[in-house]
Amino acid sequence: MKIQLKEYLVRSERFLASVRDLASIGATAGGGVHRLALSPDDIRARKQMVEWMEEAGLTVSVDDMGNLYGLRPGRNPGPPILFGSHVDTVPFGGRFDGAYGVLAGLEVMRVLHEHRVETEHPLGLAIFTNEEGARFQPAMMGSSVAVGKWPVEEAYAVRDQEGIAFGDALQASGFLGERRNRISRPLCYVELHIEQGPVLEAAGKTIGIVQGIVAQSWHEVVLEGEANHAGTTPPSRRRDPLVAAARWIAYVHEMAESSEGALLVTCGRIAAEPGAVNVIPRKVAFTVDLRSADEVRLRKAEEQMFAWGDDLCRRAGVEKAVRRLHWAPYTPFASGIRELIRESCLRRGYTFLEMPSGAGHDAQHLAGVCETGMIFVPSREGKSHCEEEFSADGDLVKGAQVLLDTVLGLDRTR
Amino acid sequence: MKIQLKEYLVRSERFLASVRDLASIGATAGGGVHRLALSPDDIRARKQMVEWMEEAGLTVSVDDMGNLYGLRPGRNPGPPILFGSHVDTVPFGGRFDGAYGVLAGLEVMRVLHEHRVETEHPLGLAIFTNEEGARFQPAMMGSSVAVGKWPVEEAYAVRDQEGIAFGDALQASGFLGERRNRISRPLCYVELHIEQGPVLEAAGKTIGIVQGIVAQSWHEVVLEGEANHAGTTPPSRRRDPLVAAARWIAYVHEMAESSEGALLVTCGRIAAEPGAVNVIPRKVAFTVDLRSADEVRLRKAEEQMFAWGDDLCRRAGVEKAVRRLHWAPYTPFASGIRELIRESCLRRGYTFLEMPSGAGHDAQHLAGVCETGMIFVPSREGKSHCEEEFSADGDLVKGAQVLLDTVLGLDRTR
Repeated sequence: MKIQLKEYLVRSERFLASVRDLASIGATAGGGVHRLALSPDDIRARKQMVEWMEEAGLTVSVDDMGNLYGLRPGRNPGPPILFGSHVDTVPFGGRFDGAYGVLAGLEVMRVLHEHRVETEHPLGLAIFTNEEGARFQPAMMGSSVAVGKWPVEEAYAVRDQEGIAFGDALQASGFLGERRNRISRPLCYVELHIEQGPVLEAAGKTIGIVQGIVAQSWHEVVLEGEANHAGTTPPSRRRDPLVAAARWIAYVHEMAESSEGALLVTCGRIAAEPGAVNVIPRKVAFTVDLRSADEVRLRKAEEQMFAWGDDLCRRAGVEKAVRRLHWAPYTPFASGIRELIRESCLRRGYTFLEMPSGAGHDAQHLAGVCETGMIFVPSREGKSHCEEEFSADGDLVKGAQVLLDTVLGLDRTR
Repeated sequence: MKIQLKEYLVRSERFLASVRDLASIGATAGGGVHRLALSPDDIRARKQMVEWMEEAGLTVSVDDMGNLYGLRPGRNPGPPILFGSHVDTVPFGGRFDGAYGVLAGLEVMRVLHEHRVETEHPLGLAIFTNEEGARFQPAMMGSSVAVGKWPVEEAYAVRDQEGIAFGDALQASGFLGERRNRISRPLCYVELHIEQGPVLEAAGKTIGIVQGIVAQSWHEVVLEGEANHAGTTPPSRRRDPLVAAARWIAYVHEMAESSEGALLVTCGRIAAEPGAVNVIPRKVAFTVDLRSADEVRLRKAEEQMFAWGDDLCRRAGVEKAVRRLHWAPYTPFASGIRELIRESCLRRGYTFLEMPSGAGHDAQHLAGVCETGMIFVPSREGKSHCEEEFSADGDLVKGAQVLLDTVLGLDRTR
């Protein structure tokens, strides 16, 4: 068994050359990639992927969300072992987010193709449409519809900032396929991705074995008071929503600090109206993004925040309106897949760390329909979603090897 | 002496009718007035004022800032006793801010005209251009240039949001006059104004005797940290400028609270970049407006805030850049004029309160060149700069009477 696994090794030069080649499509002057979903560069990248997949002996199919699947038959019929990620990027994003997992999956297929390996199960390389949610919201649109979590008609109706509907952009791209091509129930799914955070680098480990994706709670909080003159309104008469917002934001960050890392809190957006230096604001809106690997703790944190906020607003004479923007439960990954990843690391002598993912990935939708796992490699300084995003060649190759080992392990044992 | 003063009384009906008539120029559906400086409605209001001033026997002159002066000769030559205010408004402002003081001044002139009163000193009714600073910044432009505090060329070069230069707008309005018409050194200046705050109403008093205009300190604070992923960045790696801004804003308001009213603090503007729910902000900018009737205290509050802020930013790993937007020292009003206002109140049986002005007024520029004073009347619920701005007829009339008494008092005693 150990010997058999060692027979199949990814070819570093070929794999890294493909990483470089795909990064040239939509390349930015700053060394990143700007390749928004269904943009001309995204379409070029998809065409490149189709060409490479066909060269690797794969049969390419496209579903009604434009998700691309490169399929390879197994000895047995039935659902494939699926692996992949996405090739769209955020504006002025990096070369590795998404593309890395797709190209490592391609390398897996190439290795099997050149060695004429016959697997028990069919294998599929998936390229999901609009994972980033940068052009069309929400993120992870393709995988969400593919697994039947979201109606395709709603996805088609979503418009970008220029008013172009996703459905129209998809049709115009030439990547509108058939609903029957969806792989809604793969046998299992594995996604290899850069960490996008600094944990592996700081720990000096090569491979992240992802335990699950943290639960997320996003809210918009709108506080309304009364606009008034900054010079003539005594403190007792002020109903200032910005003071309340500032205290709220300070408070939730104190909650995070006292949680010792169990709770992540981010307030990313804030705006005050009317927004003049010498006018007490009438209205302030801000967002709160809460995340935790412990869903019960996250629910409790929400309750604690709102109870405290109610009291704060009452004392400040401010009206509060809260809108939930997003909720994602904790997504645990399959222990069987984590075990196969660990086995690969031990066999190859790669250092590893069991860790949660603080970011969302297509894998979280797949986890609802099949056994799912994720593999991380380090991101330099934890930077991602920016042109400086970087992972070392050696780590990229090791991650691809772990993906290959894991896919073969799944094929043997499922 | 007492008997002589009682002879001259404002005529309520005539005065209130003029208040209504002027408010019809630029009237809004919501009961307010929208009359931006040098807009067509401001020009109509100015023409109406010129007509009324000439009917009251005044000689109207215009200076190079478009400031209008309605002049009445005295027995002696020399600089006039000046009184007035402005007729421009903020967008969707009220009927009384500025216009009230001008029309009460007109009523003073009408009373003296119909009684053929000959004063010792010339009298002048002043209508200053662009007091509000809503269309052209800064506020109080006309009075600032008139007293020689600001070069007229700089005022001419200021552009509104549509790119129209103040100088061009002034020329087009037909109200560009001669520099030699400026009244740069009046004998003294008195301004009657609505309070724009709730203090008189809450105290149940009719007349505010203004002690001075509070010192003002405006700053923009820009904090820069590092944009990062809300899910993958551990607390120890965050350099979040919004958390620092929130703590800063909460802190300065605690300073205000512990000052027991001696320090007013307003943060009116805040913005975060890039401003996405799930991205730790890179940059946050906000403003701090500090006011106090005690200039030394205000300077100390600034120092305290910045010392605390330095420490905060150091701990938060955030860079700080501070820009002073505005500084106005405390402007004390002349005790002699305050005494005359008090005498009028006592003589007429009007209740009064000595109070500072938290808002700026043309009077603060005049105070640099002559003995100056201000009179306030109550604003309902303290509302101003909005369509709901309201002061009761009875209070308006009493304020006008106090202005008349004060002007005559000044004429007798100066």
